[in-house]
Amino acid sequence: MLLPAPASSPGSASLIQQLGDLCRSRGLPDLADRLRSLHHWVEGDLDDFETELATVRRGVRAVQRAAHHLLDLGGKHLRPMCVALAAKLGAGFDEAARHLAVAVELVHSATLLHDDVVDLGDTRRGTGTARTVYGNAASVFAGDWLLVEALRRVRRARVPGLLDYMLTIIEEMILAESLQLERRGDLRADADEYFRIVEGKTAALFCWAMVAGARAGKLDDSECEVLEQYGLHLGVAFQAVDDCLDFGGDARVTGKALLTDLREGKSTYPLILAMQRDESLAPLLQQALADSTGGECPLPETVERKVVAAVERTGALDDSRKLAAEHVARAITCLDPLTDGPGKTALITVAEATAYRQG
Amino acid sequence: MLLPAPASSPGSASLIQQLGDLCRSRGLPDLADRLRSLHHWVEGDLDDFETELATVRRGVRAVQRAAHHLLDLGGKHLRPMCVALAAKLGAGFDEAARHLAVAVELVHSATLLHDDVVDLGDTRRGTGTARTVYGNAASVFAGDWLLVEALRRVRRARVPGLLDYMLTIIEEMILAESLQLERRGDLRADADEYFRIVEGKTAALFCWAMVAGARAGKLDDSECEVLEQYGLHLGVAFQAVDDCLDFGGDARVTGKALLTDLREGKSTYPLILAMQRDESLAPLLQQALADSTGGECPLPETVERKVVAAVERTGALDDSRKLAAEHVARAITCLDPLTDGPGKTALITVAEATAYRQG
Repeated sequence: MLLPAPASSPGSASLIQQLGDLCRSRGLPDLADRLRSLHHWVEGDLDDFETELATVRRGVRAVQRAAHHLLDLGGKHLRPMCVALAAKLGAGFDEAARHLAVAVELVHSATLLHDDVVDLGDTRRGTGTARTVYGNAASVFAGDWLLVEALRRVRRARVPGLLDYMLTIIEEMILAESLQLERRGDLRADADEYFRIVEGKTAALFCWAMVAGARAGKLDDSECEVLEQYGLHLGVAFQAVDDCLDFGGDARVTGKALLTDLREGKSTYPLILAMQRDESLAPLLQQALADSTGGECPLPETVERKVVAAVERTGALDDSRKLAAEHVARAITCLDPLTDGPGKTALITVAEATAYRQG
Repeated sequence: MLLPAPASSPGSASLIQQLGDLCRSRGLPDLADRLRSLHHWVEGDLDDFETELATVRRGVRAVQRAAHHLLDLGGKHLRPMCVALAAKLGAGFDEAARHLAVAVELVHSATLLHDDVVDLGDTRRGTGTARTVYGNAASVFAGDWLLVEALRRVRRARVPGLLDYMLTIIEEMILAESLQLERRGDLRADADEYFRIVEGKTAALFCWAMVAGARAGKLDDSECEVLEQYGLHLGVAFQAVDDCLDFGGDARVTGKALLTDLREGKSTYPLILAMQRDESLAPLLQQALADSTGGECPLPETVERKVVAAVERTGALDDSRKLAAEHVARAITCLDPLTDGPGKTALITVAEATAYRQG
C-alpha cells in the first residue's frame, strides 16, 4: 500500500520491544535478547523523559496546539535515548540530562514542523501533519516556538558549552536543508553532496545528543569526542535506512507514504546508486519531474514503477542497506576506547537495531 | 498610488535627516533642530552598528542569500538605535552593545522573513520580499538562520540575563503573532486584544532593545526598568503610527502597499475605532472578506473606499494618531527619573519623532 493507515506511534520503550520482536522473527535471537536488556536498562529513564516532555506548556494559542499536535503523536524518541544512554555512561540521567533530552526532541520537532511546511507534507507519524490541521502559518510559528523552548531547556540544564554547540548544530541543519532545497529536482547530485546533506540535516543533532548526555554525565573530553563520532555514524546509518524505507518500508509503521522523497525530487542514496548504474533512469525522472504539475502523485505510475524496479535490480537498495550497516559498524568501533559495561552494550545494541528498524 | 514604487530604503542616519526635513516643513523647527543634534549624537555609533551588521556571514546557500536580500534593503534600524541610545546613557556603545544592536535587528529581520511567508507578503521596503525571489521554503529557513545568528550575538556580548530575556521576548512575539493569526478576518476584535497583540508582536522587542543597551551600559536596575517602560510605550506608539500609515501613508516611503493590513483581515486601531463608531462597517467588511477569493486585491474597490472614508469621517484615524501621541508622551514621562543630558534628550527626540514618521 502506498498510503499509510493511521497507526498509534510507539514511544521509545515500545519501539525497543517492537524491534525485539522483529529480530526474533528474523532469526536474530542474540540481538533480541540484548534489546530486552536495553529495555530494562533505560525504561525508567525514558519514563522520566516522557514526564519531563509533558511539562512543555499547553495553551490555547494555535502555535501551541500545532506544536502539541506533533508532540502528542509520540515518535521514536531516539535522540533523547541517545542523551540518556550517554549520561548513564557517567553520572546518570539526572535532572540536567532530562532537560537536554527534552531539548533535543524539541529541536527535532521544530525542524519537522518547518520541513512539513517547506515540503507541503500531508502525513507524519500516520496522521495529518500539523499544517494540514492548523495551517502553514501556525506550523511555522509552532516550529519557532519549540526552538525557543528547546533553547530555554538547554539553558536550564546549566551544562557549560552546550548552548553554543546547539546553536552551531542548528545552523548546520539549516544550511544542509538549504542545500537539499536547492538540489530538489536536480537528480545529478553526487554521493559527496549527499553525505554533506545527511551529516548536516540528520547526523549533527545525533552528535549533539551524545555530547550533551556525555557532558551532563561528566564524562571527560576524550569520551565526549568518542561519543560525538558515534553519534555521527549512527545519524548517517539512521538516514540511510530512512532512505531505504522510502522505497520498501511499511507505511503503517513508518507513518508516511512510500516514495515521498522520490516524489519531492529529493536525492536519496538508493536513487543516487541506481542512477549511476542505470543511465536511462536520470533523464526519465528528470523529464517526469519537469512535466509534473505537483499534487499528491506528481509522477506517472509507470515512472515510479520503473524507478522502484531499477533500485532493486541494480542492487542499489541492498547496497544502501550495506552502507547503513557499515556506518553502524563504524559507530560501534568508535566505542572501543570506552570501558565495557551495560552502558556500552546499550549503545552497541542501539546502533545494531538502527540497521533493522522498520519505522 | 496603491502600489509602491521601488525606493532606496534609508538607513537610520538618513532617516533622522528625513524626519528633520519633515519637521521643518510642518513648522516644527524645534524638533527639527533636536533631530539634527540627535544625528550628531549617534551618527558614529550607527556607522559602527552598520559595520558590525556587515559581519553577518554571506554565503552561497539560498537561506543566506534570502536573509541578505532583506538585510541589504536597510530598514530604519530603530531597534539598534534604541540599544545605542540606552548604552550611551551609561558606559557607551561598546563592543558588547554593538553585538546586542545587531542581535535585535536580526531577530526583527527573522520575524519579517517568517511574517512574509505567513502573510504571503509580496512587497517589503519598496521591493519584492525574499520569498518572491527565493521562495517560501528558503524564507522560512532564512528566518531560522537569522534567529540562530541573533542568539549567538547575544551570547557573544556576555551581558548577564539578556539571553534568557531574549528567549522570553521571542516567545511573547510568537504567541502574539499566533493570536493575530487566529483573529484574522474576524473583525470583532476589541481594543484590549489589540493592545495584547501590539505589546507582544512589536513593543516587546523595543523593551528588550532598551534593557539590552542599558545593561551593556552598566545602568542600575531602576534605570533599566525605566527604559523598559519607555520601550513599551515607544513600541505601542510605533505600531499605532504603522496602523495609520496603512490608511494614509506614502507607499514610496513606507515601502509597502496601502491597505495591506486591511486586505489581510488584520485588525488595526483605526479600523477597530471606525467599526465601533459606524456599525454598518463590520458586516460590510466581514461579508467582503468572506466572499474574497484572495489574490492581490481581495476586497472590492467600493468596499475599500467606504472603509477609508469611514476611518476619516468617524475621526478614527485622528484618534489613532492621538493614541500614538499619548504613548509618546507616556514614554517621555517614564524618563523623568533619569538625569538630564544629551542621552535623555536623544530619547525624548526619538519618541517625538516616532509620532511624525512617514515610513
